[in-house]
Amino acid sequence: MSEQYANRMGTVHRSFIREILKVTADPSIISFAGGLPNPRMFPAEAIQVAATSALGGTGAVTLQYSTSEGDPVLRESIASRYVNRKNLSIGSDDLVITTGSQQCLDLIGKVFLNKGDKVVIESPGYLGAIQAFSLFEPEFVSVSLESDGPDLEELEKAFAAGAKVFYAVPNFQNPSGVSYSLDKRKAVAELVDKYDVLFVEDDPYGDLRFKGDHMPTVFSFQKKPGILLGSFSKIAAPGFRIGWIVASGERRDKLIIAKQAADLHTSTVTQAIMREYVLNVDMDAHIARICETYGSHRDIMVNMIDKYFPDSVESTRPEGGMFLWVTLPNGCSSMKLFDKAIEKKVAFVPGKPFYTNGGGDNSLRLNFSNAEPDRIEEGIKRLAESLEEFLG
Amino acid sequence: MSEQYANRMGTVHRSFIREILKVTADPSIISFAGGLPNPRMFPAEAIQVAATSALGGTGAVTLQYSTSEGDPVLRESIASRYVNRKNLSIGSDDLVITTGSQQCLDLIGKVFLNKGDKVVIESPGYLGAIQAFSLFEPEFVSVSLESDGPDLEELEKAFAAGAKVFYAVPNFQNPSGVSYSLDKRKAVAELVDKYDVLFVEDDPYGDLRFKGDHMPTVFSFQKKPGILLGSFSKIAAPGFRIGWIVASGERRDKLIIAKQAADLHTSTVTQAIMREYVLNVDMDAHIARICETYGSHRDIMVNMIDKYFPDSVESTRPEGGMFLWVTLPNGCSSMKLFDKAIEKKVAFVPGKPFYTNGGGDNSLRLNFSNAEPDRIEEGIKRLAESLEEFLG
Repeated sequence: MSEQYANRMGTVHRSFIREILKVTADPSIISFAGGLPNPRMFPAEAIQVAATSALGGTGAVTLQYSTSEGDPVLRESIASRYVNRKNLSIGSDDLVITTGSQQCLDLIGKVFLNKGDKVVIESPGYLGAIQAFSLFEPEFVSVSLESDGPDLEELEKAFAAGAKVFYAVPNFQNPSGVSYSLDKRKAVAELVDKYDVLFVEDDPYGDLRFKGDHMPTVFSFQKKPGILLGSFSKIAAPGFRIGWIVASGERRDKLIIAKQAADLHTSTVTQAIMREYVLNVDMDAHIARICETYGSHRDIMVNMIDKYFPDSVESTRPEGGMFLWVTLPNGCSSMKLFDKAIEKKVAFVPGKPFYTNGGGDNSLRLNFSNAEPDRIEEGIKRLAESLEEFLG
Repeated sequence: MSEQYANRMGTVHRSFIREILKVTADPSIISFAGGLPNPRMFPAEAIQVAATSALGGTGAVTLQYSTSEGDPVLRESIASRYVNRKNLSIGSDDLVITTGSQQCLDLIGKVFLNKGDKVVIESPGYLGAIQAFSLFEPEFVSVSLESDGPDLEELEKAFAAGAKVFYAVPNFQNPSGVSYSLDKRKAVAELVDKYDVLFVEDDPYGDLRFKGDHMPTVFSFQKKPGILLGSFSKIAAPGFRIGWIVASGERRDKLIIAKQAADLHTSTVTQAIMREYVLNVDMDAHIARICETYGSHRDIMVNMIDKYFPDSVESTRPEGGMFLWVTLPNGCSSMKLFDKAIEKKVAFVPGKPFYTNGGGDNSLRLNFSNAEPDRIEEGIKRLAESLEEFLG
């Protein structure tokens, strides 16, 4: 049977990163390609305790079908963190639990995007969002990401031309590691309000700041309500697939309808374990340990880059998150460098897939959370050798 | 801000059943409205053991990101059940783990449905499928469900007019409890092959047969490959949100792309617990216990209906599953009966929402799995009283 796939499938491809991850399954390759948290930082013992508590008894509630909006106690505890740590007035009814924050992107696509709607996205931008939104066949409009946030002139031009959604990761962005300055946060809030653009603020890395001061969300400066996304993947463990979307009123109700159609509800089993975890563990102390570890990994990677990379190669200096962005001299292709690096048993993600407008061929992403310090040292040396040979 | 929702949201509404479930949260109401398994049948202790096994150790794999297609050992064990119990040649690479079988419907919509494509669905049909497919704006074509399966003349007429997908639940259908006869299974397979229609065979209840012999799948009679859906929700517990979709080759690859965009992968935590459960438990013995319980519930409900319902009211006699379908005399509205029944503290789901063509006003669905025997007896008496008063 020659299959007739839906037109939308023509625009989406199997994640390039996932293909690369297969190449790097070879343990002799030092990989900076993945976007994985460090498994040493998983609170495995506390999760075992939480699971015993969650699954004790008859399971009449924990193993049964439940509401699409998610466990009320878990929602309350997420809302409390916003109130206490970020001074945001968010209640438990203002958020919906999702099957990872990836699902938020799918639900937003379903609820808001008609074919051809303009979606503004940072350039480089988060690949998972590009992939999720692509299924709704929008027109992507890319806005250059500078070292302190988006190019505001480009952003206003994009908004003035009639954008519907602006999706961004203002804290320690994936892939670039860039964080928005306070001024740019305020400016972005003003612009989305002025042009009535739906701002989707994805914040999986905000808690992972190991240098400098925490910044307020863009959401907090908006006069019209934006949408804020969060996740337990980077501060607890990604295997749970628990994220959330902050939205209220009719907007939340529409998202719940889309969520019902997508998977009825997120697993009550994982929600119950996560609920017991957050209720009984000092989350902030655990996050501080993650920050200490990732901060030291970041320092090692930055120091090694300073020591061994050719001067013509630039890199970002992230104050948090999991990624660092490297820019090669103009005209150099990181795709070609990739082949050379694999020969030397080191891997990264070439920058091109993160650009919806076809640029970025001379850039690449390095992950510093997953590999251990000695592997980071050795891997950056290997990458430096590849660069020396490649740049000549 | 006046929101501009996507056009597709105009066609989908909050599940009517979920709204009804809120009304029936009052414990004094005996509810046959939900579609819930009986929580007494959850294998809670075996799941506790499985969770301890799955979450022991560092969690480096169980708590980490994973592949979109799902746990290979879990997939292998699902495939083996098809081989051993149904004589189907299905391997672990021929299926993808999904976040409940509800997600299969979303993925099929994404991969196959363009706006306006014709989707043939049983009348009455499964509400979750109607809801999931609606987001892709197909044209629903309903085919009458008779006591032994679809009206074959109507089905061929629908196919001849250019249908793309036929979605059906041939075993103990939700909402009607109807199962296809062997002849109709063969006839459906021939017709979907002849007209090159993609047949989606949803089979969450097939294992729950408490009378008569197990029937082969329609899938097994097809010469061109169909799509088969399965779920642990009714044979283990729904809270896991673990289902699967049987598909191979390019079709499977497209479904995996859509799955990546939807939620990256189903929770590794729930997959690991379910894997340990299926590897260490006698699933068939547990399913036999469920069948024994539901079979006795069904007998009680059928006997009470025979004893107390007016003769003008008809009902199905399902040999498995969780539902029974009641038809009132022509012209009687089950929506109006619902109000009267709620006064008498008994609830059901009116039939209308299960019809995509606007019929079914004189029908209703009763669930017999969830309520305990004494509540079934009392509830059917109350419903009989409501019927007496209503029909006069």
